[in-house]
Amino acid sequence: MSAESRFLTLLRLLAHDPAAQGLMDDVAVLPVGDSRLILTSDTMVEGVHYLPTDPPADIGWKLAAVNLSDLAAKGARPVGCLLNYALSGDEAWDEAFIAGLGEALDRHAMPLLGGDTVKMPAGSARSYSLTAIGEATGVVPTRTGAQPGDMLYVTGPVGDAGVGLALASADPAASGPLVDAYRRPRPRIAEGALIAPVATAMMDLSDGLLIDAARMAQASGVAVTIDHIPLSRALERARGASVAVQIAAARAGDDYELLFALPRSKTPPVRAIPVGYVTQGAGLALMIDGAVMPLPDRLGWEHG
Amino acid sequence: MSAESRFLTLLRLLAHDPAAQGLMDDVAVLPVGDSRLILTSDTMVEGVHYLPTDPPADIGWKLAAVNLSDLAAKGARPVGCLLNYALSGDEAWDEAFIAGLGEALDRHAMPLLGGDTVKMPAGSARSYSLTAIGEATGVVPTRTGAQPGDMLYVTGPVGDAGVGLALASADPAASGPLVDAYRRPRPRIAEGALIAPVATAMMDLSDGLLIDAARMAQASGVAVTIDHIPLSRALERARGASVAVQIAAARAGDDYELLFALPRSKTPPVRAIPVGYVTQGAGLALMIDGAVMPLPDRLGWEHG
Repeated sequence: MSAESRFLTLLRLLAHDPAAQGLMDDVAVLPVGDSRLILTSDTMVEGVHYLPTDPPADIGWKLAAVNLSDLAAKGARPVGCLLNYALSGDEAWDEAFIAGLGEALDRHAMPLLGGDTVKMPAGSARSYSLTAIGEATGVVPTRTGAQPGDMLYVTGPVGDAGVGLALASADPAASGPLVDAYRRPRPRIAEGALIAPVATAMMDLSDGLLIDAARMAQASGVAVTIDHIPLSRALERARGASVAVQIAAARAGDDYELLFALPRSKTPPVRAIPVGYVTQGAGLALMIDGAVMPLPDRLGWEHG
Repeated sequence: MSAESRFLTLLRLLAHDPAAQGLMDDVAVLPVGDSRLILTSDTMVEGVHYLPTDPPADIGWKLAAVNLSDLAAKGARPVGCLLNYALSGDEAWDEAFIAGLGEALDRHAMPLLGGDTVKMPAGSARSYSLTAIGEATGVVPTRTGAQPGDMLYVTGPVGDAGVGLALASADPAASGPLVDAYRRPRPRIAEGALIAPVATAMMDLSDGLLIDAARMAQASGVAVTIDHIPLSRALERARGASVAVQIAAARAGDDYELLFALPRSKTPPVRAIPVGYVTQGAGLALMIDGAVMPLPDRLGWEHG
């Protein structure tokens, strides 16, 4: 067992409340009276989760978006959030961060409720946390309910953000739809609320289609075959659509599309792209252009 | 206006929901059905909010305690919390931190519900955030309701943690009640729930008696006179009880006692020490041994 797995095991000892779901999901589901609150918190670290050269307004946007995406995967309505902010020492930078954060909060009707602002010692990488609170709008899907016979869908193409990150790493002034996909992901709040009542399982794609599909398969106790890797036109124009490009797209993180399973008899309630299917068994299989492919050694981004 | 004040003004634009209370309080009060949730979040930064030499179990304890103290000041019952943790790279250190955190969570029946774990780049100061959720048990006191004629009380002596910090800074192996007060503050959860129904105003002492009393005076639109600075026996043994020691104790942070105002006709429902009184007017006055004292230039710890 790795040090991080041991650490998570220790945390689980403190997470004995049913609301914590054994820390096996991205969110907690807390019953309060007749409501169920959805709680999630994500931290972004300079040089780890974003490039130091990324524009501060985009970093602020993204901090809100990644948390909103966790709410979207539960079909939840945003209620509010708390921000833990590390001052940069550069007033204009801080103001731009808050402007970008505010844009995402306003767009998704998620008011700021509180938080804490700190100063870091000189030379330290900064980090920001947002804790988001949502309210369930009905059924709260998990990642554990996928059934043999289900079809798997995503709400949009994958891999754009991965290429966008590469472009922004090479040139901080790079722009265009791929860089936008990396810097300004769009949480699928409206789609999530429509899919939640019918999906057997749902999660957001934060670490890559392959690794997230493998996690859904494991959590649901089923086998998943991915037989289509949907690419955007922008990605095809930039990189082509070779098998290597497809696999790279399926391993790339930061998509924030929703991945969901639906009984074969049902039609997705939103525009969605079929990417595979669920069978009895265990594990993940990958087919490209009808041929079974060996899985890459590393399926996607593994968190610290 | 300082850069930090401007920053807070920007944050307030995003905090338009009544639950945010204009970010003027330490907590948000969120109505959910018939309940009111109390939300608070505090960040601790290495080298800013704790000493790098402090034992990790004590840092974990304190992170829980400072958040619990915010719930205590609202008379709230702890419901759960989310942790944002930066791995140290030292497994034993991380385990000790979680053990200390867990001790405080268990003691106060606050389960861990979720959060996020990240790695920091090498050489960075680490920071930890906890977001705590409580449920109001009745009246939720604010810091705005103190009335002329009220008496002011604290739930315990002040200044111990300030001296404890000085001792631990000089010698990381220092121990005893003063160091304990700094490293293992005890949130006044039980006391808070008993005081909340009768207090006209309440807050926890995080930055020092003088500055926190001045904040209560300003928020309530009244004048406050502090005429007694209660010292512990441990502090008197270590430092004596001179006027300078009393003033230092009243300017020291990290006490986490509750400061509350009560109509003169009422008796505190818990053991409490009178420290002053409320009159018409504005501002803070300090009396020691019956004599009016000039206020120190810096009343306490001002947050970044």
